[in-house]
Amino acid sequence: MSRFFSKKFERLTPYTPGEQPRDMKYIKLNTNESPYPPSPSAAEFAKREAEKLQLYSDPECTDLVNTAAKTLGLGEDEIIFTNGSDEVLNFAFAAFCDSDHPAAFPDVTYGFYKVFAAFNGVPYEEIPLRADFTVDVNDYTGINKNIFIANPNAPTGVALPLCDIEKIVRSNPDNIVVVDEAYVDFGAESALPLIGKYGNLLVTQTFSKSRSLAGARLGFGAAQAPLIRDLNTVKYSTNPYNVNRMTMAAGVGALLDTEYFERNVKETIETREFTKVELEKLGFTVLPSQTNFLFAESDITDGETLYLKLKERGILVRHFTQERIKDYNRITIGTKEQMIKLIETVGKITEGTK
Amino acid sequence: MSRFFSKKFERLTPYTPGEQPRDMKYIKLNTNESPYPPSPSAAEFAKREAEKLQLYSDPECTDLVNTAAKTLGLGEDEIIFTNGSDEVLNFAFAAFCDSDHPAAFPDVTYGFYKVFAAFNGVPYEEIPLRADFTVDVNDYTGINKNIFIANPNAPTGVALPLCDIEKIVRSNPDNIVVVDEAYVDFGAESALPLIGKYGNLLVTQTFSKSRSLAGARLGFGAAQAPLIRDLNTVKYSTNPYNVNRMTMAAGVGALLDTEYFERNVKETIETREFTKVELEKLGFTVLPSQTNFLFAESDITDGETLYLKLKERGILVRHFTQERIKDYNRITIGTKEQMIKLIETVGKITEGTK
Repeated sequence: MSRFFSKKFERLTPYTPGEQPRDMKYIKLNTNESPYPPSPSAAEFAKREAEKLQLYSDPECTDLVNTAAKTLGLGEDEIIFTNGSDEVLNFAFAAFCDSDHPAAFPDVTYGFYKVFAAFNGVPYEEIPLRADFTVDVNDYTGINKNIFIANPNAPTGVALPLCDIEKIVRSNPDNIVVVDEAYVDFGAESALPLIGKYGNLLVTQTFSKSRSLAGARLGFGAAQAPLIRDLNTVKYSTNPYNVNRMTMAAGVGALLDTEYFERNVKETIETREFTKVELEKLGFTVLPSQTNFLFAESDITDGETLYLKLKERGILVRHFTQERIKDYNRITIGTKEQMIKLIETVGKITEGTK
Repeated sequence: MSRFFSKKFERLTPYTPGEQPRDMKYIKLNTNESPYPPSPSAAEFAKREAEKLQLYSDPECTDLVNTAAKTLGLGEDEIIFTNGSDEVLNFAFAAFCDSDHPAAFPDVTYGFYKVFAAFNGVPYEEIPLRADFTVDVNDYTGINKNIFIANPNAPTGVALPLCDIEKIVRSNPDNIVVVDEAYVDFGAESALPLIGKYGNLLVTQTFSKSRSLAGARLGFGAAQAPLIRDLNTVKYSTNPYNVNRMTMAAGVGALLDTEYFERNVKETIETREFTKVELEKLGFTVLPSQTNFLFAESDITDGETLYLKLKERGILVRHFTQERIKDYNRITIGTKEQMIKLIETVGKITEGTK
């Protein structure tokens, strides 16, 4: 920290992204990327823009918003696109939270929420998940705080049914409820259909997972028009051209290619269920997942040891040091071949320690 | 504003980007874009990444930082890349300014500074330019505020010599001086060589103008390592993957193609000087410009009328309503052909009003 750094950030601890080692080629199952390349139309649309980069991108993201509105059944004033969904989440903390409107989220969830809160000077409460890592909806009903809830949750993979989400939204009419649906396409129920009904609901999604565009940086928020206008006030006060031309075009291409999207999602779900069964055969406890990853632990080996031994053998998974989940590893669902290799390798590691 | 919007933003007025009308095809001289397409290597490098978008971009921007460090003669820990230079400017307001460290900048300058200040809750002083729109360096010596100075300035186009910049930086050792060099390549002296000497200097640049990448969104900040670390703390607390894969690759391509860059800059400067002379022949007062635009006014027609009449005739320039500069228009330097068309059209308009 330089002597010029504002004292307000004195105790700010930034987010740590999943490691991206460059020393060797890994089977990369640590950042929940899709194992499938982007849709050919996404790539093609992006390439066409590469020749026109001397011109600014459209700050209103008109084509992308129109395409998304049609695809998702929303109004064109009910969507804001951002540079990844992290950006819209940060905008939401900035726009709606302050010392009078603190935030609340589970103790085990996307680790960035507490960083966004700290960065924006927002007090927050971490509400413990139950022992089985499920959300107790009663902990979130009528709590008079802005609620950030990942559904399905990460890194657990566990989803809430839509009726529980609705209960939370309905019982906090004077607060915002942000439902972070980064992983929703892999089997959970989206809250998008509730937007018409609740003015305090903000749903965020990303193109990084099910749409294979992590490296393009594209996410969005969906809500009734007044909330979207507030988020646009934040956007136009920080970075109006936040989405570049190539990414915008790739997003349109990805949305239009529904067949490719559905096939990849189906394949990921099948591979996930296969992997879950195989890990259970090896003695692992695996949480029920509605995402493109599994959260698994075993008495045979502790979480960190397994992570390190897998890394030595060229497979990256994500290990968290947080006390409650340090026995676990979060394993992204790759291709079937990658997961077979993972299972073989885990088998050899655990066999050796028995 | 929704009832959920934080009261801290009650009086926030967002930035208004230059208009991007979609009703017809204009000669677009209103947002200081380059009239030349990106370097072929920039476009080519970007396209190659379009097939790999399922993988996150490198949050450290390693290849880009290394290339820029070599090109600019800086250390690899002295550069941060951002999603356009607006992002690094906003980061600087967030990181270094607060109620104890207010900001100062000219009354006529990039209109976003006061929006960044307001968004970050930072008090600011607008210091009037002299009557001839030049900066009086004495207004900025030892003022105990964080200084944001566009050099060359926009929308005036007027540059300060490096010795004046150095005087400002040296005389404010306990404050940050941010030199926003969005337009520096078109003839002004960069403050980059001063970075080794002053720990309180932050230089920002963009790839949007001289490198023809406005639509890719790429900018950077350069400073001694401690300041860059602080800016990275802000980045990793808001959006670690802020630069996407395609833009990162385009940036590397643009930096490597120095010949293309130099040719376009030379051409723009020649076209600018040609345009200036022609506008003066038509009776305009044109400020001396070290940028890719001209700031011009005439007694024959007021600024807004000229702007509107040009727009009717298919030419967009930028008019600002701010009192001190409402007689002027800011005219981006396009191709020679575009500027000939502009001059002809201005000639017809002013002839009609004589």
